[in-house]
Amino acid sequence: MRTNVVIIGAGPAGLMLGRLLELAGVDAIILERKSPDYVLGRIRAGVLEQGTIDLMDRAEAGARMHAEGLIHHGVELSFDGDRHRLDFSDLIGRHVMVYGQTEVTRDLMNVRKAQSIYDAEDVELYDFDTAKPYVTYRQSGKTHRIDCDHIAGCDGFHGVSRQSVPQKALTTFERIYPFGWLGILVDQPPVADELIYAHHERGFALCSQRSHTRSRYYVQVQTDEKVEDWSDTRFWDELRLRLNPETAEALRTGPSIEKSIAPLRSFVAEPLRFGRLFLAGDAAHIVPPTGAKGLNLAMSDVATLADALIEATLDHSPAGIDVYSAKVLQRIWKAERFSWWMTSLLHTFPETGPFGRRIQRAEFDYLCGSRVAQQSLAENYTGLPS
Amino acid sequence: MRTNVVIIGAGPAGLMLGRLLELAGVDAIILERKSPDYVLGRIRAGVLEQGTIDLMDRAEAGARMHAEGLIHHGVELSFDGDRHRLDFSDLIGRHVMVYGQTEVTRDLMNVRKAQSIYDAEDVELYDFDTAKPYVTYRQSGKTHRIDCDHIAGCDGFHGVSRQSVPQKALTTFERIYPFGWLGILVDQPPVADELIYAHHERGFALCSQRSHTRSRYYVQVQTDEKVEDWSDTRFWDELRLRLNPETAEALRTGPSIEKSIAPLRSFVAEPLRFGRLFLAGDAAHIVPPTGAKGLNLAMSDVATLADALIEATLDHSPAGIDVYSAKVLQRIWKAERFSWWMTSLLHTFPETGPFGRRIQRAEFDYLCGSRVAQQSLAENYTGLPS
Repeated sequence: MRTNVVIIGAGPAGLMLGRLLELAGVDAIILERKSPDYVLGRIRAGVLEQGTIDLMDRAEAGARMHAEGLIHHGVELSFDGDRHRLDFSDLIGRHVMVYGQTEVTRDLMNVRKAQSIYDAEDVELYDFDTAKPYVTYRQSGKTHRIDCDHIAGCDGFHGVSRQSVPQKALTTFERIYPFGWLGILVDQPPVADELIYAHHERGFALCSQRSHTRSRYYVQVQTDEKVEDWSDTRFWDELRLRLNPETAEALRTGPSIEKSIAPLRSFVAEPLRFGRLFLAGDAAHIVPPTGAKGLNLAMSDVATLADALIEATLDHSPAGIDVYSAKVLQRIWKAERFSWWMTSLLHTFPETGPFGRRIQRAEFDYLCGSRVAQQSLAENYTGLPS
Repeated sequence: MRTNVVIIGAGPAGLMLGRLLELAGVDAIILERKSPDYVLGRIRAGVLEQGTIDLMDRAEAGARMHAEGLIHHGVELSFDGDRHRLDFSDLIGRHVMVYGQTEVTRDLMNVRKAQSIYDAEDVELYDFDTAKPYVTYRQSGKTHRIDCDHIAGCDGFHGVSRQSVPQKALTTFERIYPFGWLGILVDQPPVADELIYAHHERGFALCSQRSHTRSRYYVQVQTDEKVEDWSDTRFWDELRLRLNPETAEALRTGPSIEKSIAPLRSFVAEPLRFGRLFLAGDAAHIVPPTGAKGLNLAMSDVATLADALIEATLDHSPAGIDVYSAKVLQRIWKAERFSWWMTSLLHTFPETGPFGRRIQRAEFDYLCGSRVAQQSLAENYTGLPS
């Protein structure tokens, strides 16, 4: 087989890239290790920035998002039970949309016309440091080869793409946080119309939602906690303790339909281009989920990468691919900074001691009293211009 | 002897408090352990916020400050040689004034009419948990006693006032930074009209000034460095390396007339009131010098304390003194936060590793591109409203 671009990974980043290329007339094949059902079974947050909303429209995949997505004009912050709402619309005239990542994936799968190959095992990348790269994979016991001009690695943190780059060509930056998020999904209406990010001396909590009838809640837990040790009752009790009493009272609980613990990590690999291989999304960078930047950053990467690959393929111009890495890294680091900052503000860090906690409180108090500080949070949360 | 208020310490905070009380007709005696010349020999930064400028005027001590002080409309930030000027006037319509702390002290000494007792040794505070506190001290071998209604502890971090409070009544918060500032004073025109705060991979540097002909420069050094190991030449060489090349080129060096290393510390003791004893300024809190908040915070404390003591003395109302501690702590923690933040942005911290350095760079890049982030820095630097 031969194609212009082989895309590794059929998550939202890979699918979006494939769709943008297909709309521009650039041939691309998506290779995915897992089955479509497996991909759609992944539960992920979905707070879409305006740039991501626009991109869904450009991909002609935005109809259901506009119909079912929930526009959020603000968020609530809470600190030891003291509440403060940030009104993004008033602060900077922007908003976000709550629409599950799974739904984004589904919509992008549905609009795609070109080829996606699922259950592609043992994907291997070859000769991307030459003009003739190719990719091999196994399916039903047979090995296949796809020759191409470019390879896009959209296969996440644990994927093969970044691992195929020689170690000495990569510089990595990492911070592992000393805690994780225990999350549960429940078929109950959310406790509030908007998201609530809560700092409490017992730890962070987040009241989030997928729809008017499905809610997602999180509490900060130690890294070594086991999900089996958290009954639904224990989870709800702990969550209530971390919220404002009124919010705790209003909480509508129920049996969890999903429950898991995710570690928190900041990670960036540089650069994002190696000859004819390009990394995008989680394959190149991870943010802690505080601030909901992960999906948006991946979408922003592939928007830039799509334009660069279209230019390279149709105009035979390397201008876009030459600046791809430097260009997206600017935005990536700003999102890394914001995600790190919001994580630092809202979680408890045993190692920072009483002084550190007071600084967090002072940050919250300053934020509550300063319009420009609120505007700064708002412009980051709703998405910085690219 | 008997007076309304005994003020411990004749630094700028104690002198300002004494002056405000004297202008209101409240009798106060200032006790100072050192001589006037010693007090005036202390070299300290002097970047005055508008609130401090206004307070100097209220103290009728502002004439020379207005004549000789330098109004600064902005400040330059530099990161690994990349420069960005923040224009405070444009950003938030405010400015600061550069006027040495020594000059503030001198002006306040000159306007004071009431009694100040210098060379007062072995000051001890008694019975401030009763309605009849008193203070004793020794002078020329004799012990003296002053009975009073209230005691104001303005005697700095190492002073006797805070140490007189039972340990169990105090909660302290502290962060010691793993570095200090090596500073030199030189009779040369400053390298730039405004202050330059520089982050460099070799460490922080600051180009500061006392007047058009006297400059003060600093470089971050490890805590265990000895000032004897830093010749003037070594200092200038190191400073140049940390600045933008153009700035380094323009630097006018000369023999140092003062050279010293100061550790960096964040510290807050709570509360600031113990019966009839009140702490103000460095006696209660220390900020690292980045952001120049120390003097301004002390002045803001004593402005609030003066009003409270005037009310208590003349109107026999405890309203002001009852809220003093809680009120000033709000502002103190915001200044602690800002000083900590600016210190964190601009210094090198070996323990944060490569990820931490990139976050610092991302913060600088974000700041350079975001007007609201610049406004946030500017409103803190020029002084938050009280």
